[in-house]
Amino acid sequence: MYSVIVRGHMMIAHSFKGEVFGPAQRLHGATFVVDVEFRRPDLDADGIVIDIGRATEALTGILGGMNYRNLDEQPAFAGRNTTSEYLARVVFDRLVEAINRDEMGPGAAAVETIRVTLHESHVAAAAYEGAIPGHASR
Amino acid sequence: MYSVIVRGHMMIAHSFKGEVFGPAQRLHGATFVVDVEFRRPDLDADGIVIDIGRATEALTGILGGMNYRNLDEQPAFAGRNTTSEYLARVVFDRLVEAINRDEMGPGAAAVETIRVTLHESHVAAAAYEGAIPGHASR
Amino acid sequence: MYSVIVRGHMMIAHSFKGEVFGPAQRLHGATFVVDVEFRRPDLDADGIVIDIGRATEALTGILGGMNYRNLDEQPAFAGRNTTSEYLARVVFDRLVEAINRDEMGPGAAAVETIRVTLHESHVAAAAYEGAIPGHASR
Amino acid sequence: MYSVIVRGHMMIAHSFKGEVFGPAQRLHGATFVVDVEFRRPDLDADGIVIDIGRATEALTGILGGMNYRNLDEQPAFAGRNTTSEYLARVVFDRLVEAINRDEMGPGAAAVETIRVTLHESHVAAAAYEGAIPGHASR
Amino acid sequence: MYSVIVRGHMMIAHSFKGEVFGPAQRLHGATFVVDVEFRRPDLDADGIVIDIGRATEALTGILGGMNYRNLDEQPAFAGRNTTSEYLARVVFDRLVEAINRDEMGPGAAAVETIRVTLHESHVAAAAYEGAIPGHASR
Amino acid sequence: MYSVIVRGHMMIAHSFKGEVFGPAQRLHGATFVVDVEFRRPDLDADGIVIDIGRATEALTGILGGMNYRNLDEQPAFAGRNTTSEYLARVVFDRLVEAINRDEMGPGAAAVETIRVTLHESHVAAAAYEGAIPGHASR
Repeated sequence: MYSVIVRGHMMIAHSFKGEVFGPAQRLHGATFVVDVEFRRPDLDADGIVIDIGRATEALTGILGGMNYRNLDEQPAFAGRNTTSEYLARVVFDRLVEAINRDEMGPGAAAVETIRVTLHESHVAAAAYEGAIPGHASR
Repeated sequence: MYSVIVRGHMMIAHSFKGEVFGPAQRLHGATFVVDVEFRRPDLDADGIVIDIGRATEALTGILGGMNYRNLDEQPAFAGRNTTSEYLARVVFDRLVEAINRDEMGPGAAAVETIRVTLHESHVAAAAYEGAIPGHASR
Repeated sequence: MYSVIVRGHMMIAHSFKGEVFGPAQRLHGATFVVDVEFRRPDLDADGIVIDIGRATEALTGILGGMNYRNLDEQPAFAGRNTTSEYLARVVFDRLVEAINRDEMGPGAAAVETIRVTLHESHVAAAAYEGAIPGHASR
Repeated sequence: MYSVIVRGHMMIAHSFKGEVFGPAQRLHGATFVVDVEFRRPDLDADGIVIDIGRATEALTGILGGMNYRNLDEQPAFAGRNTTSEYLARVVFDRLVEAINRDEMGPGAAAVETIRVTLHESHVAAAAYEGAIPGHASR
Repeated sequence: MYSVIVRGHMMIAHSFKGEVFGPAQRLHGATFVVDVEFRRPDLDADGIVIDIGRATEALTGILGGMNYRNLDEQPAFAGRNTTSEYLARVVFDRLVEAINRDEMGPGAAAVETIRVTLHESHVAAAAYEGAIPGHASR
Repeated sequence: MYSVIVRGHMMIAHSFKGEVFGPAQRLHGATFVVDVEFRRPDLDADGIVIDIGRATEALTGILGGMNYRNLDEQPAFAGRNTTSEYLARVVFDRLVEAINRDEMGPGAAAVETIRVTLHESHVAAAAYEGAIPGHASR
């Protein structure tokens, strides 16, 4: 299995609901350094997994929709705790949508799985990894 | 699959038995920077994989049992080479025991697999990854 | 010159006032990974720059006063932009106060300069470095 | 599953053919920091996955064959784009050959899968991961 | 003294002349991850050292002039070994020119010193640090 | 001022004497990842600060003298706590001796200052920085 991994980041405010979060129930924030790994079993004719330039642009666009914002005020997240693991899934879902809209070039259609990792500090991270829904080979 | 990853460290002395270890047969030591990844297929009602505070406490406790010690003198390791890969398994086993003792909260029961990585320097690491024994879904 | 460097972190929300900040004028947040370097020309009788345990505790306490908070609501920062460079200075000032209150042990009195670095992402950081006011040797 | 991970690097020149590469069609270069993860289900009698010294030597030898070279002039890569993902596969194949020539000691025969990751910058990487062809347990 | 540090990178080919370089006399390449630290004694009215957005743009522009190129063919470097330390100076000089052309905003005029660090691998780096020529306060 | 920075590491056992060290009074160990920065005001005719290959060899030799050893049994350290800051000075002194024995080539004679940083974990480091004794320009 071949992979290409690209990195981006976003700086957001949010708060959590639930006793388990302790002081993180207060409004605070985070820098998320985001690594996205695209995987497919074979390389294309150019010898690549995906157009890394377009993949980076797509990631930048997705993170740009949350960057410098208070996620508590985003309608898309109403009633949800925007934990790192949940946001990893959000980025995954939006990447799948971008692939389905053909925004990452023809090679992206051959990507079978994606892993999104959000590093929230030097001692904590979260990830979501999954197959691309509807992909023929799975 | 969702993941949460937490980091801790320990500073230990030890020696190895066996020609393959060369100069590492002498008493020496290591800082192990330890990453633990907890994985489960769905988030709980709070939107998390595991209570990250309790997971970090459990890891700190496990590493604390070895930290600032000479592992050659630990009865638990008698007759064993405490290599990085072996210690990764030890940390894994002790995390499973902590989960089974319900020390990491109810969410931990849904964790299916754990990966423990020990970084021993900027150029070497070892890991153990496995399913939690007895977990219903496996 | 000898140094000891310890690391901590905090996760905060804030916003900036001023056109130069562009989208960062909106409420957002950051994880600051904070490195503090303590410097003195000679080691003490134990062979150390400073009691690293107490230095880490002091740093944790200082960061704890801001961690999981919206800095826009902190009276101490009223009318100020809590930029990374400004916060580096805040941490510096509070470390100097902790030294002056003798919270870091007798060795801390010999520390001449401190550098505080705040990493706000994998591509940006800020720092403040200065002599400890009133230190005899300066 | 147990893993051992070793790191090396190489500094090469190359160019790519194909519009998708944009300015990278020009002759340029890269430092590849290379992580190799060797995996097997059980440890050997010494408590290790692989002789880390010999594994590092094998990796150094493989990278040494490309280091400080222009890959466009290497006959082995004629007609191919030496992308990061392709080179990850090249390193994988050459490690398998080294194992098959018994250059990494008897323990290497028990290695089932290898993952090779090439970090090309602080924001991009590529990997190839596969089972060792002909391994009995697969 | 306050600092702001921004990061960029470039991927170049080059070769060196001189026996001291050994195999690096051959055409090869490097990824340079470049950190630039801007320093000034006081913050401006906005609480910043420099407009970090414009500083990043200036750095990206300077690195873009070398990125994806063979430095052996650049007239600006004729007769010179483009070592990491030399390139650190080149980036420094071009940053000073950008400041003098007022490309980084009014705050940049108060910057007194700049440090440019080029990381060429996980085990080697080079830097140039200097005062900005003609700065009044020096 | 120009710099070249090289990295090595060593894995040692030791213990400390003195209440300030708490549990680190027990025999334990550490991996020290060691960065050495060599500084001089001008480059030589080849465009370098120092022969990086010979500097790395010298550092490897110095660390090799301590690597895989129990520092408590080294006569050179009798009666001393081998703290990170003290060991940074030891490495500095041995590098100066190597320069004075002309082991790092003619360029090393122009090096004015050296900074040695020992990273003992992801959250702690120590350093010693000084001028090379007897250097004419100081």
